[in-house]
Amino acid sequence: MNTSTSIYQLESNVRSYCRDCDVVFATGRGATLTDVHGLSYVDFFAGAGSLNYGHNNPHLKKQLLAYIEQDGVTNTLDFHSDAKTRFIERFEQVILKPRGLHYKLQFTGPTGTNAVEAALKLARKATGRSTVAAFTHAFHGVSLGALAATANADKRGAGGVELSNVVRLPYDGFFGPDIDSADIIATLYSTAGSGYEKPAAIILETVQGEGGLNCASTHWLKRIEQLCKDLGALLIIDDIQAGCGRTGSFFSFEPAGISPDIVCLSKSISGYGLPMSLVLIKPEHDCWAPGEHNGTFRGSNPAFVTACAALDYWQDTRLQDTIGVYSRLIRTALETLVAQTSPGTAQVVGRGLFMGLKFSDPDTASRLVSACLEQGLLVETCGPQSEVLKLMPPLTIDAHTLTLGLEKLQQACLNVLCVPTPTATALRGIA
Amino acid sequence: MNTSTSIYQLESNVRSYCRDCDVVFATGRGATLTDVHGLSYVDFFAGAGSLNYGHNNPHLKKQLLAYIEQDGVTNTLDFHSDAKTRFIERFEQVILKPRGLHYKLQFTGPTGTNAVEAALKLARKATGRSTVAAFTHAFHGVSLGALAATANADKRGAGGVELSNVVRLPYDGFFGPDIDSADIIATLYSTAGSGYEKPAAIILETVQGEGGLNCASTHWLKRIEQLCKDLGALLIIDDIQAGCGRTGSFFSFEPAGISPDIVCLSKSISGYGLPMSLVLIKPEHDCWAPGEHNGTFRGSNPAFVTACAALDYWQDTRLQDTIGVYSRLIRTALETLVAQTSPGTAQVVGRGLFMGLKFSDPDTASRLVSACLEQGLLVETCGPQSEVLKLMPPLTIDAHTLTLGLEKLQQACLNVLCVPTPTATALRGIA
Amino acid sequence: MNTSTSIYQLESNVRSYCRDCDVVFATGRGATLTDVHGLSYVDFFAGAGSLNYGHNNPHLKKQLLAYIEQDGVTNTLDFHSDAKTRFIERFEQVILKPRGLHYKLQFTGPTGTNAVEAALKLARKATGRSTVAAFTHAFHGVSLGALAATANADKRGAGGVELSNVVRLPYDGFFGPDIDSADIIATLYSTAGSGYEKPAAIILETVQGEGGLNCASTHWLKRIEQLCKDLGALLIIDDIQAGCGRTGSFFSFEPAGISPDIVCLSKSISGYGLPMSLVLIKPEHDCWAPGEHNGTFRGSNPAFVTACAALDYWQDTRLQDTIGVYSRLIRTALETLVAQTSPGTAQVVGRGLFMGLKFSDPDTASRLVSACLEQGLLVETCGPQSEVLKLMPPLTIDAHTLTLGLEKLQQACLNVLCVPTPTATALRGIA
Amino acid sequence: MNTSTSIYQLESNVRSYCRDCDVVFATGRGATLTDVHGLSYVDFFAGAGSLNYGHNNPHLKKQLLAYIEQDGVTNTLDFHSDAKTRFIERFEQVILKPRGLHYKLQFTGPTGTNAVEAALKLARKATGRSTVAAFTHAFHGVSLGALAATANADKRGAGGVELSNVVRLPYDGFFGPDIDSADIIATLYSTAGSGYEKPAAIILETVQGEGGLNCASTHWLKRIEQLCKDLGALLIIDDIQAGCGRTGSFFSFEPAGISPDIVCLSKSISGYGLPMSLVLIKPEHDCWAPGEHNGTFRGSNPAFVTACAALDYWQDTRLQDTIGVYSRLIRTALETLVAQTSPGTAQVVGRGLFMGLKFSDPDTASRLVSACLEQGLLVETCGPQSEVLKLMPPLTIDAHTLTLGLEKLQQACLNVLCVPTPTATALRGIA
Repeated sequence: MNTSTSIYQLESNVRSYCRDCDVVFATGRGATLTDVHGLSYVDFFAGAGSLNYGHNNPHLKKQLLAYIEQDGVTNTLDFHSDAKTRFIERFEQVILKPRGLHYKLQFTGPTGTNAVEAALKLARKATGRSTVAAFTHAFHGVSLGALAATANADKRGAGGVELSNVVRLPYDGFFGPDIDSADIIATLYSTAGSGYEKPAAIILETVQGEGGLNCASTHWLKRIEQLCKDLGALLIIDDIQAGCGRTGSFFSFEPAGISPDIVCLSKSISGYGLPMSLVLIKPEHDCWAPGEHNGTFRGSNPAFVTACAALDYWQDTRLQDTIGVYSRLIRTALETLVAQTSPGTAQVVGRGLFMGLKFSDPDTASRLVSACLEQGLLVETCGPQSEVLKLMPPLTIDAHTLTLGLEKLQQACLNVLCVPTPTATALRGIA
Repeated sequence: MNTSTSIYQLESNVRSYCRDCDVVFATGRGATLTDVHGLSYVDFFAGAGSLNYGHNNPHLKKQLLAYIEQDGVTNTLDFHSDAKTRFIERFEQVILKPRGLHYKLQFTGPTGTNAVEAALKLARKATGRSTVAAFTHAFHGVSLGALAATANADKRGAGGVELSNVVRLPYDGFFGPDIDSADIIATLYSTAGSGYEKPAAIILETVQGEGGLNCASTHWLKRIEQLCKDLGALLIIDDIQAGCGRTGSFFSFEPAGISPDIVCLSKSISGYGLPMSLVLIKPEHDCWAPGEHNGTFRGSNPAFVTACAALDYWQDTRLQDTIGVYSRLIRTALETLVAQTSPGTAQVVGRGLFMGLKFSDPDTASRLVSACLEQGLLVETCGPQSEVLKLMPPLTIDAHTLTLGLEKLQQACLNVLCVPTPTATALRGIA
Repeated sequence: MNTSTSIYQLESNVRSYCRDCDVVFATGRGATLTDVHGLSYVDFFAGAGSLNYGHNNPHLKKQLLAYIEQDGVTNTLDFHSDAKTRFIERFEQVILKPRGLHYKLQFTGPTGTNAVEAALKLARKATGRSTVAAFTHAFHGVSLGALAATANADKRGAGGVELSNVVRLPYDGFFGPDIDSADIIATLYSTAGSGYEKPAAIILETVQGEGGLNCASTHWLKRIEQLCKDLGALLIIDDIQAGCGRTGSFFSFEPAGISPDIVCLSKSISGYGLPMSLVLIKPEHDCWAPGEHNGTFRGSNPAFVTACAALDYWQDTRLQDTIGVYSRLIRTALETLVAQTSPGTAQVVGRGLFMGLKFSDPDTASRLVSACLEQGLLVETCGPQSEVLKLMPPLTIDAHTLTLGLEKLQQACLNVLCVPTPTATALRGIA
Repeated sequence: MNTSTSIYQLESNVRSYCRDCDVVFATGRGATLTDVHGLSYVDFFAGAGSLNYGHNNPHLKKQLLAYIEQDGVTNTLDFHSDAKTRFIERFEQVILKPRGLHYKLQFTGPTGTNAVEAALKLARKATGRSTVAAFTHAFHGVSLGALAATANADKRGAGGVELSNVVRLPYDGFFGPDIDSADIIATLYSTAGSGYEKPAAIILETVQGEGGLNCASTHWLKRIEQLCKDLGALLIIDDIQAGCGRTGSFFSFEPAGISPDIVCLSKSISGYGLPMSLVLIKPEHDCWAPGEHNGTFRGSNPAFVTACAALDYWQDTRLQDTIGVYSRLIRTALETLVAQTSPGTAQVVGRGLFMGLKFSDPDTASRLVSACLEQGLLVETCGPQSEVLKLMPPLTIDAHTLTLGLEKLQQACLNVLCVPTPTATALRGIA
């Protein structure tokens, strides 16, 4: 026990991660965290996806320190600022233009849930409709507007009021391989008198992070996009966790070739773990009146500075290529692990550096988290029953640390699942 | 025109402050902002109350730089961290203990609206009731749960859905001097069959910032506190703008001697303009289940570092004393201005360093904002018709800059209202 | 015990009146009910106001029998029918024209609550607004739309869901004699930023029947009417209980000289206790699309037949004059009773033949109901705590039976309140 | 044109049936209606299902006249009355006992929508849950609580507010023959984290009357019943249109062998077209507090009298047998008609005396209604696009009139669809 109980009991019962991990973190560099006692941990958690570029990324850190040292303004709300101007220019140049995307940028309060609230409000205003369609197993945040779109029962129950104006649709694969849920959805909306009214928007994650690393197929995403067009509904991609490179491309929806009307970004958009959110809006839907959605911290310049620096990673394809290599490495490692378990025990889920192991026994993943922690590896679970072990190393992790993390995972699996130790050398081959 | 139009049009129409102020801010120090062209502005806006300790406060800056330089962890969600531990200890020691307050701390997503969402959810859970009472002219944020409690019609209209589970009560003074709105409220709740059901909570700002600097009296606050007790409802003080010293004491409700069940803090709690929010909960109401309200950026350590450093200002009474002196100075200056206008034109509103001028002609305040900007003074309006000129200098402003700002205000008033120039020397006397 | 327990326990627990009155009613004539054992009761209940013309009124009965005997169509929904045509013509000629009123008629499902549902829906459609304002102590029915406008906490609680889109305003006199609640309401709506948005409609009863026989003054009604005009809101008078002559004129709002946009009628509109409802709509607000509000029993021709016959009572002023005489008689009797009790024990409330005694001790009225029943007088209570004894004899009661009923009431009061027996002769003077 | 325009324009625009049928009905006997000019119409509409025993059924009429003549009490709310007692006893004896059913009886306001409102409220109270599941194409009424369960878009749009607390499920056959919608529903509810929370109730019609005469299979109904048990949800059968013998048995769900928790009856329960509603509640769910759901006309004794007399039809199987014979006759006639049209033009839908023709061209059914009217046959359409011609003759129709009606239908089809005239003799065979 390395924490001062008296102090930690001052935190509300709502505290969560710290309950299963009695570590007090002090410093971080890249994919390595260190606690107050100097013990190190390989980080396959990455601030729940908010640290895609690693802890205290030196390139970003340099810019951040310089900005603070020279007394760069910190919070300017939506006044113009030098740092914001530079971020906007750079985002347009590095991200939007090369992808042929035309979006206007809205900086909301710096939480993912606030970006979603803004997106839903705008979609409702733009269409004059009130109902939004969201999916089974979706997670979009916990403020009331976003919470209505979130599927998780515990989170919803904590709302304390009825959550309305959202209809729940089945995600890709929800009914198993024999039924295309897009068929189901299309029938619900195309049948006169079904009671399914045209929605303001359909909001979705291309990979459901909290929902268990469920991946939507390109085919399904294209059908949902087309359905939105047919219904006059806006397609909102919540790319808060899956975006910023996590699945391999900057936006998670790039491989599907779809063109969302609104995109929500947060988590790793600042690149340094600093709070920041960004909503991308097709110009034709940007019907906001000035100040209709506001918030004090929508102009956090230190975050703009690191966000601008992080875009340097997207000037060429090197990071993207590395993610691909790492992704295949992790998949191989996980498939090897699965092969060593009884059939049906586990399966590999997710894509990019957003992968994990889904266990048939819902307790396994949680036991693995503890076992990993003992090995010095930080991971978390996801899925409606916490049945998925989720691996989210920083995208910029070096091959050695990645291998080390996977070895620790293997050892934890050995301890928990009685899986034989892997040939560590095989994994090291990539380093 | 000193901005690059093409870039700024990439921002959504929702942008607001920048529309009336074509300045691109670059750096800030204390109460002074500097734009990209090197022009300086006295800042009586203070990041909408998020910069109570001034821009790049050297004491906080030093700690922040040291933390970043040594690779202190940035975002740890609700894992334990060294920086969070130190903040909690310090907050308990410097703020809570000396005031005899017993609260548990919840770190929510780092926006004011998220703190309010958490407070409302918790009050509903703690009481098993769904309706919350909020006040005329209240502003509590724009995510749907908080928006339901906000009174502003434009903000509410942008919600796009019905805002429910909130009943609206008249604030202190709402019906003028002859009717105590606490009598009205008490009658509504104490009369059987009135249709006013016992609420989960009553949420209020002791000084309504966006609502026009309306101040609740001690007498009225005590009656509302008693009413909450009688109804078994929680008293929530939204101290997001009025707290952190803005009205003269750390919490705005200290002079009233009331003991809220829940307190929401944000804006200046980090001290440096970094996003951070904090909800204080009486232990008996802390009925959260782990993780019921969450958010990625609820563990932003750079903000904890500056927040901890900012608490040094509350170890003794020096800051508080200075606020008192400044407050009287500003009141005198504003009363002098009012005295120079026709009767009924303007009145002084607010308290502490949260004061302003309320004009009978709703256009005056906006015209003054422009005139002040021409003088190099940054101010904003508030009130339902933007009829109040709101002055919020940093609490740590030096007397010279404060005087300078007031002179600029006087000059702007001269230009807009044809008020004679004041005897500047008189004001300078305080420096 | 004169009921077969086994049979009565087949009725749901929701049964109510029969719990305090173990009588099985068989026949009725005028103001007299007779049970299965031949015992008679004077009826000051009148089917909760649905039998203003007495039981089996001979004039109406004759028409009804003739209609049924000749195989007149029973239910024609909203097809044209001979009986409906005659009612419409007669209503226009006897009721609307002489009063200078121009309304279109909507026949809704034959319950009061359905008439209110229709009125609220239409007001929302006509104005494009969703919120309706209703009053403290209001009762408008228990289907969800009407229930949201009803103030009674028990009834609301039984809804099982949040009741939304209604804002609650203080009725005339709610805050006592020193505060005009119309001032309060006007201020709430006229103050910018109050959070009280313009409603679709204001719905009210001019005398609140279930709410405790609270009477709105002419002055107050005119102010609410004006407020509706100022707000572009529709004024809906729920005249379901107070209308059809109960307060002395056909419509309860006639003495106030106001002109509601929508009027809801039910209860005694058929005249014979047969289910029927009628919504009167100013032509300029009749924006229904065909069939938008429907219901199987909206064309109940036996009810149209008796409703048409009942209008004969309104061809001249004789009934109206009699109501006036009876009303004064009852008031005198009640005031005499009050004078015999300790000061503050009871007060006379209501107007027309819609009067009662409000007791400071909420149990008194219920005890009186039982004591009256023992005397052979049927009455009920009203008010949020059942603290009001409500007297609603048929309007067509003969003077002898009225006197008899009042004597029974006096005897019950004597038994319950130890009030001395009145000089019966004095009462008989009117016969 | 046989109506006085000036009078009919006094009816609100909401009037519907009369727009397509400029007939003023005067009398009715059995399955024959007569207008004010003496013209006769065969009635295959039966008061939208409220006249299952025909117009002015002599057996019922005799009891009704006797009751009125002897001054039987008309409206007694929920006091005990002789007429109600006799109905309850008879209903228990003739309907419930022989079917092994145990229900308590709640008499609600005499509209179908009110019965549904009561059922939904009770289910929510009994389970402590707020959401109710209803089906695609469902119709349950238009007061707000019932309207939320209704699927029809126009009706819902007229609500003017958001309709909440209802989730929409796919009815049997909704996704075509290859997908069992019960599988879809079961998966939605059995998958953790789906966002489909356990409902208070599932409400359904076994044959969807307004929805287009869609029939649920026994297999599907049993699965829904089992699902309700698994979820702890109440199964509510809305038998308002399909009940009272319309599909062949008294309750429509008898052939499926299911045991609903709550059953809603209205329309033909009084037997004579008089307004009446009845909710049947399994004793273990009868958790109403006295008076929690009320309404003035919940004790309409003339309706109890005819309702009691109508039960005589269910003492033996004669009526049921006749319905079977007639049903086969109608089916044969309709199939003959379909066989004469091009493949895909029309199909026979429904069961019992609740059958119709569904046309691929949505205009056909409406044109047929007009053509039938010209032939002296009253019918109506149903279905989301009014694409179904619905035939609902009284159950007690004589074979001659039934044949006559079918001949008129054939003639109308000939005129509209150019279908050859049938061999009338074939049809007459049954007379």
